[in-house]
Amino acid sequence: MKESTEYQALSVETLPSRLGRIDEITAHTGTDSSQWEVTEVGDGNLNLVFIVRGPAGSIIIKQALPYVRLVGDSWPLPLYRAFYEYHALTRQQQRAPGSVPEVLYFDEQQALIAMEFLEPHVILRRKLIRGEKVDGLSGFLGTFCAQTAFRGSELSMKSSNKKADVALFAGNVKIPAITEALVFTDPYFAAPMNNHTAGLDPVVTKLRDDVALKVKAQQMLQRFASNTETMVHGDLHSGSIMSTDVQSRVIDPEFVQYGPMGFDIGMLCANFLMAYFSQPAHRKDDLNDYQEWILGVIEQTCHTFESEFRQLWQTERTGMLYPATLFEDQGHDSSHACDAVLSGLWKDAWAICGIEMHRRCLSLAHNADFEDIEDTVARAPLEARNLMLGAELIHNSDTIQDSKHLCELARQFNNKDFL
Amino acid sequence: MKESTEYQALSVETLPSRLGRIDEITAHTGTDSSQWEVTEVGDGNLNLVFIVRGPAGSIIIKQALPYVRLVGDSWPLPLYRAFYEYHALTRQQQRAPGSVPEVLYFDEQQALIAMEFLEPHVILRRKLIRGEKVDGLSGFLGTFCAQTAFRGSELSMKSSNKKADVALFAGNVKIPAITEALVFTDPYFAAPMNNHTAGLDPVVTKLRDDVALKVKAQQMLQRFASNTETMVHGDLHSGSIMSTDVQSRVIDPEFVQYGPMGFDIGMLCANFLMAYFSQPAHRKDDLNDYQEWILGVIEQTCHTFESEFRQLWQTERTGMLYPATLFEDQGHDSSHACDAVLSGLWKDAWAICGIEMHRRCLSLAHNADFEDIEDTVARAPLEARNLMLGAELIHNSDTIQDSKHLCELARQFNNKDFL
Repeated sequence: MKESTEYQALSVETLPSRLGRIDEITAHTGTDSSQWEVTEVGDGNLNLVFIVRGPAGSIIIKQALPYVRLVGDSWPLPLYRAFYEYHALTRQQQRAPGSVPEVLYFDEQQALIAMEFLEPHVILRRKLIRGEKVDGLSGFLGTFCAQTAFRGSELSMKSSNKKADVALFAGNVKIPAITEALVFTDPYFAAPMNNHTAGLDPVVTKLRDDVALKVKAQQMLQRFASNTETMVHGDLHSGSIMSTDVQSRVIDPEFVQYGPMGFDIGMLCANFLMAYFSQPAHRKDDLNDYQEWILGVIEQTCHTFESEFRQLWQTERTGMLYPATLFEDQGHDSSHACDAVLSGLWKDAWAICGIEMHRRCLSLAHNADFEDIEDTVARAPLEARNLMLGAELIHNSDTIQDSKHLCELARQFNNKDFL
Repeated sequence: MKESTEYQALSVETLPSRLGRIDEITAHTGTDSSQWEVTEVGDGNLNLVFIVRGPAGSIIIKQALPYVRLVGDSWPLPLYRAFYEYHALTRQQQRAPGSVPEVLYFDEQQALIAMEFLEPHVILRRKLIRGEKVDGLSGFLGTFCAQTAFRGSELSMKSSNKKADVALFAGNVKIPAITEALVFTDPYFAAPMNNHTAGLDPVVTKLRDDVALKVKAQQMLQRFASNTETMVHGDLHSGSIMSTDVQSRVIDPEFVQYGPMGFDIGMLCANFLMAYFSQPAHRKDDLNDYQEWILGVIEQTCHTFESEFRQLWQTERTGMLYPATLFEDQGHDSSHACDAVLSGLWKDAWAICGIEMHRRCLSLAHNADFEDIEDTVARAPLEARNLMLGAELIHNSDTIQDSKHLCELARQFNNKDFL
């Protein structure tokens, strides 16, 4: 029951008449669309997001816009990202059940997805800025990252299915291209759309003069663009997670692609580290307690990831990689192989983590953890700590032992002045 | 002017009537197909290959068979490999002009490619077994490998074109699957279709008990299957090269896929090393001279590869990776970045080299260099040297300095007894 008309952006006014006769939608809202209450809540950079509240319940309607909302129609962006988001959500639902909003309806031509309304969830980044804790967060995120990484790879998938998926998602060109430029390249020179906090110049100059750092960042870009190990969310920061005090969900996978298995967990750690470094500007009394809670989330998320990955290795290794025929069936323990895979995965993760820490302070799309600090004199030294730890991680991604080591480095850098 | 009928295998008898009215073919053979002399010369494992000699000239007709010729119709194999071979040949022609036979005509439904007849070229492997030298071989091969590696990657290509190509070639599932199993996995356990020379058991047992070796081979499989750095030939051994005494061409790219940049050159070196180790059974008087000539080809092929790659880095780095905006435009030399890319590429190449040396003696498709040695008592110790150097390369791919170092190791292993 797809709309057959050409793409047209929805509005609060037109939504009820345009979607009011779609069974998959009215089953969740009630059939009398004149009773719907529609609000537009999209605060992201790319899409329209409507909450539709009806007599029978509420749903989310997410519709892609043909340009980057943050910049305007001078930066066109293909509507096909809704198609990839739909396919990402259904795969994530399958690979990590319950971790993403349920998809109720998809209209490819209107670039529109109707999905479960998460309530009373709020964007995790807002909770982190407000100093609110979320029970079970690290278990949820570690499990999500491990299950999607493992089950989307040829450790688990049949090669023919995985290759068909790689071909499918290879069509998602322009959205990952944003990551390629904004994350991996723009931070390291004065790209036209960049901005950074006044006062950071000495640190920024230092980073942009560090040729070895740029080489490493580009090596990671090469891996990001050419390594189809698994289906990654592609934009897994704290703005892509919605939480209550006890439950969390992952949203917004339109940056989906097949990429390195360490990508999502690395980007995620970076966003927790930025939350960590920004805290001194957001609170006083419970500062140390809350900062340590964030580091605990990082450490436990990585710990859960590793346990879950090892568990899946033992129980679901049905793909062509590291087959049991070659190890267990020969009386050979495959745990060394799992160690080697995880070791490579974490090296990628730490380098990605450092790069994400850079781009969020130096490139186009900054994040609220720092951006909400209106006093730039207070903001700059906190961002400097973040930037310098980022460089440390990129340079030394091969020698970071584990997430405990990472958190220890964060504590050290949290006590340093770089300006 | 495509045939519109269903796929039907050609025969010497039916070929003239079936292809005699195709302009792109008759332009090269003459239009009177009753005068054509047709011979079937396919000695490979997968296809029919006809030489068509007409009054105006000669051409090759290559047609895929729906099964593996070596095994028979018990092993079906999709005809679509002709489609991928066609697309590979046209890209190789573009990226390394003059390196492959010219494509004259392609019929997708008949899985048929008409191409330039190379004469008096013979399969290079035959020349290596006969002890014949080929002038310019290393320059040709090093240039071919470097140009196709560089120009098929995002060092050179626009990302959108490269991603479209990755999606296209991701459809070539079942042919690379042969490589995945036969090259990377089967050698390391007693797979059903394996065979190896009597007398090799002690060495074979040693390799199959080496868990670290198996882990490394599977890590390379993971890279092979998930790393879309560039379009690789995928089967670049001395049976996929045709040479006169002074000229060479690369043929048979149906194993094409996007894969690691070091794959082709690594597999190529392995095949020269196998030619090297097999020589004591093929000649006496000029043994040392010819063996050293082969090592010279390896060393010079790798040397040419590196020079050509560095040259392309300076002159054709138009892709998104390691952009000039980030290096040269900032007054920063990018040669360290090129060093890093080449360093990673060679590590892959040496590991692939070692794995290819194993699979050709342990898995299904052996090569004539060893297989033509009828006296298995003479063959086994030569294969043992090859197998043991293969293991050395897989274990130590990170520490092999360059092709000179590789050749030095080959000389050492050529003087050892492992049985």
